[in-house]
Amino acid sequence: MSQPTIDVIAIGNAIVDVMAPAEDADIERLGLAKGGMTLVDPERAHELYEAMGPAREISGGSAANTLAGLAALGAKCAFIGQVADDQLGEVFAHDIRAGGIAYATPSRAGEPATARCLIFVTPDGQRTMNTFLGASQFLPAEALDEEAIRAAKVLYLEGYLWDPEEPRKAMRRAIEAARNAGREVAFTLSDAFVISRHGDDFRAMIEAGEIDILFANEHELAALTGIEDFHEGIAHLGGKVPTVVVTRSEKGAHAVRGAEHAHVPAEAVDMVVDTTGAGDLFAAGFLFGHTRGMELEECLKLGAICAAEIISHYGARPEADLKDLVAAKAE
Amino acid sequence: MSQPTIDVIAIGNAIVDVMAPAEDADIERLGLAKGGMTLVDPERAHELYEAMGPAREISGGSAANTLAGLAALGAKCAFIGQVADDQLGEVFAHDIRAGGIAYATPSRAGEPATARCLIFVTPDGQRTMNTFLGASQFLPAEALDEEAIRAAKVLYLEGYLWDPEEPRKAMRRAIEAARNAGREVAFTLSDAFVISRHGDDFRAMIEAGEIDILFANEHELAALTGIEDFHEGIAHLGGKVPTVVVTRSEKGAHAVRGAEHAHVPAEAVDMVVDTTGAGDLFAAGFLFGHTRGMELEECLKLGAICAAEIISHYGARPEADLKDLVAAKAE
Repeated sequence: MSQPTIDVIAIGNAIVDVMAPAEDADIERLGLAKGGMTLVDPERAHELYEAMGPAREISGGSAANTLAGLAALGAKCAFIGQVADDQLGEVFAHDIRAGGIAYATPSRAGEPATARCLIFVTPDGQRTMNTFLGASQFLPAEALDEEAIRAAKVLYLEGYLWDPEEPRKAMRRAIEAARNAGREVAFTLSDAFVISRHGDDFRAMIEAGEIDILFANEHELAALTGIEDFHEGIAHLGGKVPTVVVTRSEKGAHAVRGAEHAHVPAEAVDMVVDTTGAGDLFAAGFLFGHTRGMELEECLKLGAICAAEIISHYGARPEADLKDLVAAKAE
Repeated sequence: MSQPTIDVIAIGNAIVDVMAPAEDADIERLGLAKGGMTLVDPERAHELYEAMGPAREISGGSAANTLAGLAALGAKCAFIGQVADDQLGEVFAHDIRAGGIAYATPSRAGEPATARCLIFVTPDGQRTMNTFLGASQFLPAEALDEEAIRAAKVLYLEGYLWDPEEPRKAMRRAIEAARNAGREVAFTLSDAFVISRHGDDFRAMIEAGEIDILFANEHELAALTGIEDFHEGIAHLGGKVPTVVVTRSEKGAHAVRGAEHAHVPAEAVDMVVDTTGAGDLFAAGFLFGHTRGMELEECLKLGAICAAEIISHYGARPEADLKDLVAAKAE
């Protein structure tokens, strides 16, 4: 088995976020699920865009955001995800490559358009996401660069992308390629709705030992295990997955690796502006530490620092120099 | 002559800004004119985009930014400018309409694409703009809504758009329509390069009494009048244009109306993040006061407040509630 030449390769949705401030009354009037992620068809996307205030466009996508954080920290990364052959697809591709991430998935010709996520950000910093999956949901298994997968320490998979059929098949094939090459597979559960639809798949993969690192928030943990009590839930999963990482927003985060248990509090933030990407950037910090062989608590600490940066401004791609930030916190 | 039903109608470039942080070394390496605006062809735009870091997209365009400020202050506004029938065109149209501005110019089918401006923002907050004019430069005179022009107190024209031939013709026709209806014509000189190419046109329009309100910064004032001394220059123009407004960045702004001369200092800003749109929003504040019949100094003060808001964050569209901001400053 050759030495890995990539730290993390990820498969995820290739999305451009369309973000605008909104009031709680707007969320209610539009019938949105505050704080959640809802899939929308083009008609509903159009209707919601019409109802949205002046917006800004910033590249997004859960796993892509995680890679942007990892690359900013200095990791070598590659992304697999599909845009359409249109202007927003160019925007996504530019932003990920400009972040130093290898990205070679060909864009898809014709309709549907590149995926976009209409995000309403309320004054409390909460984000309410409405995703039109567009070209992203048709990522074919043939688009996988299996050589790159075999060359990466960690294959990181986004649960959101488990929902559409083609990318699910592609991810199953990617898991096989990574495992055959002796690499680690990391998976983020993404959202409770994904678990409600595909929880059986996830539990089967866990039982089969296909997942080495599992990321979840406390709600996803409960949904997956069916266990109400947080500590019981994480202990239960810890017996099945080598490394389990669970975030609890302002209550910090926990990780279990075998008999080892670590916890860090949330990093202090002057003002929570927009929580979009908090979990994604937490995963970035954790995986950076993990690929550098750091202690479990140190990995969590890096996750907390990156999550704190991302929620201090609009958008799910880092703005501050994460390397500097981490160095400053270590002093 | 019927009562105006619109405060300000503007004709300008319909542009989406693509903004990214950059170092001074990048500006030099790429051969950019720091702090200026340079027109670029599609090849150069592509080359610069490739060299740009991860970016965000925010609607822009000088006169459109001014209207966004005016509308946020409570003015009734309409915009005339042309996008292409593409995704960035949709973004521009959405953002301007979502700001409460009437916008009915049909989008243009086929190539070129919607205009975009690649903006490199250096750590000193200075913006270096590279504009691909795209569909914007082909605004035909037929796209003018002359009824709306006749219904507006002020017709506001962007000097940048004087450069391409078709919009120049459209603007000449618009001036005629406004003057025949007894409305005021306001003009912003936009940039020294426009004056170097079209200074004779501007001086002729001024001599013919076609411009009622002229906006310039001190460099544009010097370029237009050929007079080095600031006070001499503004006095010279003041003898020819009913209202002259000249901004001087951190030195504040001056206005001359007949024998009246007013000056305000710049508003204090915690940190200058991005100066894109400073002049545009100054014009917004000034015109808001002007259409409300306020004193000259009060108009300048509103301009300074709006300019200070826009330079405190990325992008040339207001983020804070300008009405609240103005009310707070008035206390």
